[in-house]
Amino acid sequence: MDNLRKCEANYTALTPLTFLSRASACYANRASVIHEGTTFTWAQTYDRCRRLASSLRALNIARTDVVSVLAPNIPAMYEMHFAVPMAGAVLNTINTRLDAKNIATILRHSEAKVFFVDYEYVSKARDALRMLMDDNNTQQKGNNGANPTNQQHRAFSLPLVIVIDDINSPTGIRLGELEYEQMVRHGNPNYVPEIIQDEWAPIALNYTSGTTSEPKGVVYSHRGAYLSTLSLILGWEMGSEPVYLWTLPMFHCNGWTFTWGVAARGGTNVCLRTTAARDIYRNIVLHNVTHMCCAPIVFNILIEAKASERREIRLKGKPPVEILTGGAPPPASMLEQIESLGFHVTHAYGLTEATGPALVCEWQKKWNMLPQEEQAELKARQGVSVLTMADVDVKNLETMESVAKDGKTMGEIVLKGSGIMMGYYKNDEANSKAFGNGWFRTGDVGVIHPDGYLEIKDRSKDVIISGGENISSVEVESLLYKHPRVLEAAVVAMPHPRWGESPCAFLSLKKNNNSSPKNQVTESEIIAYCRKNLPHFMVPKVVKFMEELPKTSTGKIQKFELRLMAKSFVVSENLQSKKKSSSSQVGQNSIEQQLLAMSRL
Amino acid sequence: MDNLRKCEANYTALTPLTFLSRASACYANRASVIHEGTTFTWAQTYDRCRRLASSLRALNIARTDVVSVLAPNIPAMYEMHFAVPMAGAVLNTINTRLDAKNIATILRHSEAKVFFVDYEYVSKARDALRMLMDDNNTQQKGNNGANPTNQQHRAFSLPLVIVIDDINSPTGIRLGELEYEQMVRHGNPNYVPEIIQDEWAPIALNYTSGTTSEPKGVVYSHRGAYLSTLSLILGWEMGSEPVYLWTLPMFHCNGWTFTWGVAARGGTNVCLRTTAARDIYRNIVLHNVTHMCCAPIVFNILIEAKASERREIRLKGKPPVEILTGGAPPPASMLEQIESLGFHVTHAYGLTEATGPALVCEWQKKWNMLPQEEQAELKARQGVSVLTMADVDVKNLETMESVAKDGKTMGEIVLKGSGIMMGYYKNDEANSKAFGNGWFRTGDVGVIHPDGYLEIKDRSKDVIISGGENISSVEVESLLYKHPRVLEAAVVAMPHPRWGESPCAFLSLKKNNNSSPKNQVTESEIIAYCRKNLPHFMVPKVVKFMEELPKTSTGKIQKFELRLMAKSFVVSENLQSKKKSSSSQVGQNSIEQQLLAMSRL
Repeated sequence: MDNLRKCEANYTALTPLTFLSRASACYANRASVIHEGTTFTWAQTYDRCRRLASSLRALNIARTDVVSVLAPNIPAMYEMHFAVPMAGAVLNTINTRLDAKNIATILRHSEAKVFFVDYEYVSKARDALRMLMDDNNTQQKGNNGANPTNQQHRAFSLPLVIVIDDINSPTGIRLGELEYEQMVRHGNPNYVPEIIQDEWAPIALNYTSGTTSEPKGVVYSHRGAYLSTLSLILGWEMGSEPVYLWTLPMFHCNGWTFTWGVAARGGTNVCLRTTAARDIYRNIVLHNVTHMCCAPIVFNILIEAKASERREIRLKGKPPVEILTGGAPPPASMLEQIESLGFHVTHAYGLTEATGPALVCEWQKKWNMLPQEEQAELKARQGVSVLTMADVDVKNLETMESVAKDGKTMGEIVLKGSGIMMGYYKNDEANSKAFGNGWFRTGDVGVIHPDGYLEIKDRSKDVIISGGENISSVEVESLLYKHPRVLEAAVVAMPHPRWGESPCAFLSLKKNNNSSPKNQVTESEIIAYCRKNLPHFMVPKVVKFMEELPKTSTGKIQKFELRLMAKSFVVSENLQSKKKSSSSQVGQNSIEQQLLAMSRL
Repeated sequence: MDNLRKCEANYTALTPLTFLSRASACYANRASVIHEGTTFTWAQTYDRCRRLASSLRALNIARTDVVSVLAPNIPAMYEMHFAVPMAGAVLNTINTRLDAKNIATILRHSEAKVFFVDYEYVSKARDALRMLMDDNNTQQKGNNGANPTNQQHRAFSLPLVIVIDDINSPTGIRLGELEYEQMVRHGNPNYVPEIIQDEWAPIALNYTSGTTSEPKGVVYSHRGAYLSTLSLILGWEMGSEPVYLWTLPMFHCNGWTFTWGVAARGGTNVCLRTTAARDIYRNIVLHNVTHMCCAPIVFNILIEAKASERREIRLKGKPPVEILTGGAPPPASMLEQIESLGFHVTHAYGLTEATGPALVCEWQKKWNMLPQEEQAELKARQGVSVLTMADVDVKNLETMESVAKDGKTMGEIVLKGSGIMMGYYKNDEANSKAFGNGWFRTGDVGVIHPDGYLEIKDRSKDVIISGGENISSVEVESLLYKHPRVLEAAVVAMPHPRWGESPCAFLSLKKNNNSSPKNQVTESEIIAYCRKNLPHFMVPKVVKFMEELPKTSTGKIQKFELRLMAKSFVVSENLQSKKKSSSSQVGQNSIEQQLLAMSRL
């Protein structure tokens, strides 16, 4: 059978672009994208994307050139997920919560040729571009000798800027000459999209929201994006004609692939500029939303919404709105609250490097018989690999052998499959660390339960090693989340003169109008509560209360920041033991300084 | 980004084998395969398949060797869909309804190394093997010179035969030494399945049930099988934990990929030796069946079942049993009947060369508002391409240009995508006919409706050309099916001295206990009925009644046979016009002869 050859008819490159051409053929008149007063059909979206792609080509955008975009979840952002690769280019969506400095770093590192900027972000983009110009000027002044090895800071051509004005009520705000709608309007309606010959060609470049170091540029192939999209539709069982609400930023792993997935399913995208409770509830009711993804922080927004912001979404005959969430597992009480509002939650685990979710907690029918509390525990597990992941395992950190499936033995979660990134852009060192022995190392620590479901215990760097014992910070946090007054909890390692490390907890409390003293919670009460429920060595030695825990732009708690603070507590404790002086003042100052530093991010 | 390289972690071959290893990891204790008294779990199925694969390797089965199997829908048949490719070999499932001669032809053409035979088919298999031996003997007697160009008939080593005894109550029937369960039992439980390095490697070889010529061997790649499996789960929206009843033969395009698909979904396979109404109803109730595929002929079996054979499957709170069907679109009345019994029908279109269904009639929610009759018409269309099909089109037979999307202009349906076969095995001529201009030519004639849905009008060879007008035989048949007394209808071309061709109808009638003359239907009544509803040139000139229409083993009406008969009618008409003799007797004889010939198939 060796003489049976691949040809155009039986071997076509896997690319999400076929989802759009198919949607245009099969669902031509169905609503594709809705944003307030604007509605497009799939035929229109296909037409607009082809026009935009042709305009990009007219700007001399060539294959594998990077096109960056700084925009919220608006129709233009959606369209670029198809239009940019249709022109053969690579889409780089930038986190809108980054500051100008970080944006400049990404533009420089990605060598972006074009930079689309939503009108709301013009000022931030201008600052970023100015920094790049200043850098270039500095370079040109013969400063090269000062830092000859720093390739990052060599001069580079600034990207061409295209502003995206508001599609519903144009503002006239500009940054340069070009505007998005103009590009679409003047595009060639007969443009034939670039034919993707090689499915191992880059489609997207996403910078991780690294909290510890320079952001890393994760590159996806057409093949990887295509297969991950299929996996997530399958894993979440998203049927045809979904109405998908964009509560998850599209710049986050390309919206966990649902940018492409909604086209694959012939669904409708409902765009949102912000995740204000009022807008979410209003759009759900207005458009009969069936699906949405979000970080757990959006649960708080939904639960804590004022009565005037809420709408009743539990309508008879209508199934609940499906929510796919990732990150920290929502505690049972929160799950119960959110589901009573008319949502149904599925928990997933993923990372930018895996093109979004790599594991989904597939529900098993028999679990419906269990008590609520047990159901919440099962639901909080990260689950089983998505279908196009070839394999998942948990390996001993030292020996790299598979751990026992006992739900107890911890190891590093490793993945393999065509949905894993092509690699980090221009970062060979990170690539060799990430790939090894045929696996992608996630850096997350977990266990496998006897039923094959994985549960994450920690980021490997978040494990606390106290007197030789491994403490899962997630385990301590889970207990803290069960405390009736706790809203957010994070536990990190704090250097300890005797045990090496010991746990330190940071908490924010639920808002409570009743501020009487008996409603306050103290450090010693929390410690006593932990003592009652945890082995002694796992009990936090220090508990600090904050208004809000520091988070990355994607809603993850920044343990890196907390760890820095925890370090200062220990310094103060050490000082205390030596000087018995005003140590708490030192700690307090440090928190203030850190929070100030974060607010600048 | 050119230096980002494929590695084992981020580029794994797409193969359905990963569905089984994943099912074993994620759904270890869930029922995988049930057959009467026997139930396996996914962990057991994985174990059994690995053992069987190791036994095949021990028999010196090497990569790309062909392993044939002649068996009904039993657990062994299911297991071989994984075990054979796990050994690196290619699975060839043989249609059990073929006669010994055809089976011998397939064994010879495929050069099968191993031949698994279910105990029920031992006698047929013995006959086939004897024919092969006789052929070999004839060859050895120096008869080569007689037919030197006929490569098909060169001597070849007979395959090693392994009998599959009944797993529930062993019969002891054997054909040679080896037995299936023995192979499983003695296999190596620690066997590491062959790692598929190249997804463009063959996994299956399926011979088409060609009615006109030698069967053609269609080869599937691992990649094609994998992607088609995902397409069908998605297209049919088969959620997790399906309970799938095997009413479709697994030898038919590997059960339209659901052999692999049920593993992908962690579902349960319910095996069936026959499609007797009693067994179907009993298993549906016993195991809470959720899904089944079948040819439309099974609808008749379900509808015409005696009261004693039926079970009530419309239980409260239970959704209907999903049926995916292909081939001739079921008429509205039949759809209504079958759905009132507790089934829900989805219509698909496919062919062996496309790894089963290539189009699925995706239901649109807005259609629920339409009258029943219109819904049935929409449901009878073949629909839209499955998700992993890269493109579908309908092209003018002469110019090969796309036809207008007007629901009227006919053209040939062409497909492209990685789910299309690798090609026909040892048949370069057929390959060059099938592949051309970047498309696979289906040989089916259809139209595209303005909403993008395709509808098949005919096999290109079934189009009747009468006085220069194209007549879709399917269109005439649809009308005939609407007649209250018609059970089956087939319309074929009959040579006509004046018009070139004219339509000839073959009908079988519904069983009716009331045999009074007024319940009989005559040829002239049918012709009058057609005249009232069709343009004159489309009205059948001759109508013949048969007890049952001749069908292929997969339930397709054999138009080839009917065309032969129709030819004889014309001869008789010609005779009639010349001699005015007993022409109908000639026609009658011809039918009898043909039916006799068919009963021997």
